[in-house]
Amino acid sequence: MQLTGNIVVGQSGGPTAVINASVAGVYSAGKELGAAKVYGMVNGIQGFLKENLLDLDEYLAEEEGIELLKRTPAAFLGTCRYKLPVPEGHEDIYEQIFAVMEKYEITTMLYIGGNDSMDTVKMLSDYAAAHGKPQRFVGIPKTIDNDLPVTDHCPGFGSAAKYIATSLKEIIRDNEAYEGKTKLILVEIMGRHAGWLTGAAGLAKGEDCTGVDAIYLPERVFDVDAFVAKIEELAAKKSSVVIAVSEGVKLADGRFVSEFFAESTDVDVFGHKQVAGSCATLADIVERRTGIKARVIEPSLLQRAATHIASLTDIDEAFAAGSAGVKAAMEGLSGVMITLNRVSDAPYKCETAAYDIHAIANLEKMVPEQFISKDGCQITDEFLAYLRPLIQSELYPIFKDGLPAHLVRRK
Amino acid sequence: MQLTGNIVVGQSGGPTAVINASVAGVYSAGKELGAAKVYGMVNGIQGFLKENLLDLDEYLAEEEGIELLKRTPAAFLGTCRYKLPVPEGHEDIYEQIFAVMEKYEITTMLYIGGNDSMDTVKMLSDYAAAHGKPQRFVGIPKTIDNDLPVTDHCPGFGSAAKYIATSLKEIIRDNEAYEGKTKLILVEIMGRHAGWLTGAAGLAKGEDCTGVDAIYLPERVFDVDAFVAKIEELAAKKSSVVIAVSEGVKLADGRFVSEFFAESTDVDVFGHKQVAGSCATLADIVERRTGIKARVIEPSLLQRAATHIASLTDIDEAFAAGSAGVKAAMEGLSGVMITLNRVSDAPYKCETAAYDIHAIANLEKMVPEQFISKDGCQITDEFLAYLRPLIQSELYPIFKDGLPAHLVRRK
Repeated sequence: MQLTGNIVVGQSGGPTAVINASVAGVYSAGKELGAAKVYGMVNGIQGFLKENLLDLDEYLAEEEGIELLKRTPAAFLGTCRYKLPVPEGHEDIYEQIFAVMEKYEITTMLYIGGNDSMDTVKMLSDYAAAHGKPQRFVGIPKTIDNDLPVTDHCPGFGSAAKYIATSLKEIIRDNEAYEGKTKLILVEIMGRHAGWLTGAAGLAKGEDCTGVDAIYLPERVFDVDAFVAKIEELAAKKSSVVIAVSEGVKLADGRFVSEFFAESTDVDVFGHKQVAGSCATLADIVERRTGIKARVIEPSLLQRAATHIASLTDIDEAFAAGSAGVKAAMEGLSGVMITLNRVSDAPYKCETAAYDIHAIANLEKMVPEQFISKDGCQITDEFLAYLRPLIQSELYPIFKDGLPAHLVRRK
Repeated sequence: MQLTGNIVVGQSGGPTAVINASVAGVYSAGKELGAAKVYGMVNGIQGFLKENLLDLDEYLAEEEGIELLKRTPAAFLGTCRYKLPVPEGHEDIYEQIFAVMEKYEITTMLYIGGNDSMDTVKMLSDYAAAHGKPQRFVGIPKTIDNDLPVTDHCPGFGSAAKYIATSLKEIIRDNEAYEGKTKLILVEIMGRHAGWLTGAAGLAKGEDCTGVDAIYLPERVFDVDAFVAKIEELAAKKSSVVIAVSEGVKLADGRFVSEFFAESTDVDVFGHKQVAGSCATLADIVERRTGIKARVIEPSLLQRAATHIASLTDIDEAFAAGSAGVKAAMEGLSGVMITLNRVSDAPYKCETAAYDIHAIANLEKMVPEQFISKDGCQITDEFLAYLRPLIQSELYPIFKDGLPAHLVRRK
């Protein structure tokens, strides 16, 4: 079987450390399966509407380009937070997208993204089906939040987890270097609603590391009084206390902990409340109530951008997901997202499949009950067993003049 | 020539990514030069007073131990912030230190630290000289702040600089992935008085990176109005603006920028006075005056603890400084600190020497005028030429179960 026509691949939403590996996977499979051109859309569907396309041959025809792209953080093609409106009343936008596809003889669009981006794939494939258009649309999962349903996990998550666990091991070692008065550190970890990445803080614990002293996921209601009591209990017996807290922890009344002192009305374009500062807020509360000062560490963007310490397992799976998307389209599928199905844990084995996008778009997968300890302050061994394979192995950066080298778009 | 008696090595002050490489250097040279025992003092001079010693043979006799120690962040021996009082009126403390040395037949003490720790070396060597005691005291430099005088640079700085530059490249790439509305990031970098590490942000710029848009060192008075104007100017022409600011930047009246709100009637969004860092304060000011929201990134402890991305040049020099300290003592020197003397830039060549501790202890070396651009917002090519050799090469972590492995003290 061979592909007919050209392919376009786009990136959408917040980048991950390995989102570019999926572009590499799309390109490699596309070329192998006979696509004449593999285009990249610059800044996602928003750029596509403006015909802002580039020919990936210019960057990836040599193996060197692929190797550098796999080690490049952020979205090589540029990304967007554009939300495609519903077709009703916006037919012009949809027709414009299909017109660009026809103009460039593009039969297949691969869109790499998270929940919101999968909505774009769903709407475009539904529109094509409803209007008898032959173009195919396939979603490639990507999110450090790991909250897409159906798939066992999401490309990008394993590398973020590896960065978090590596950094926490270093932070804990640093904090343990002193004796005497308790040093409290609160580490704020990304994840607006789901606590997958915060849970990865549990990976730091091992033969050479005592691990974090507590982990607070957004799946459990955050009890400020219990938190303060926990700090006091830990401070009474340990000189180093390191705690991982999700940016998205919520109070019993539904407000984010970061809104403890005031209501926030800030929302982003998707209607999400902007969350930042759960740990800064908690540090303030703890100091007022106990006198214990906390150091707040918020790795922020580095959680999704630290490709220099990416998981090779994650890079390989991101690449495989991109390739699988091309194959799925070639086999006639549209309106699907590529999923990662874990076949076995020991040895770890994971296969790709394709799943109906309607069961995925706009839905979020939370950390299940059995992954969180009874007291809500730690993760279970079952969660650790789930996490461990995802952070294995490394792809060393290509260093140039002392720093990791990246592939860049020419203007 | 051969060493007589035993050696003790201690770590003091804030750790660096390579402070353990100096312990490895002391141990290796000590053993090579005939020391029967190389002791480590646990938690610095404070632990030494309590006879809290360990025999480094237990950890480092096998080459594997040395290799792991070189890759271990924070102070393997534990550290302290204990300031040795002046001898007058505290002779008991001094006599206790010499008594412990005699008990363990220790003829040489190597103390790894920054400005304050060098004061300890100075006072102990002065006391020995004044009281006719034969023991020798040698300081080994260590500080990510790079602010010790005489030495060209300090072990620990190169790795922190490599971490900052690597992280900034990743942050800038992430921030440039979007188009449209300006995204402003303020990165707060360690260094309370000297701007060496903040200056290392300039290393991010290269063929594959546009670099940071401005750099603010504490060597220049911080002008809030000029800063806000600079942000507005950058925001008008760029969708990604990334700025590096030292935690230690100061206003014309001598207050830290982080104290900007302390003397004014301004309060933060929560209605209380801001007690955050310099960047959180600046983000608040910029938002009030321009409406532009900033994301603040403070790598915090990771700047000194991220051994996983350490500079091999730095590791090698930290090791060499430790070894040189032992040799200096064997040659009869005391009351000296080991310095790194840059012999040439191309090829980079650096040698160790020993220098009178009285010219070093308690003094700070600031970034010189010619390393800062005229407008005070960037570093010069001369500064870059100084920095570049220090971040070269890598020593890959030894990964175990997906994470960098560290050497730990047994209880």
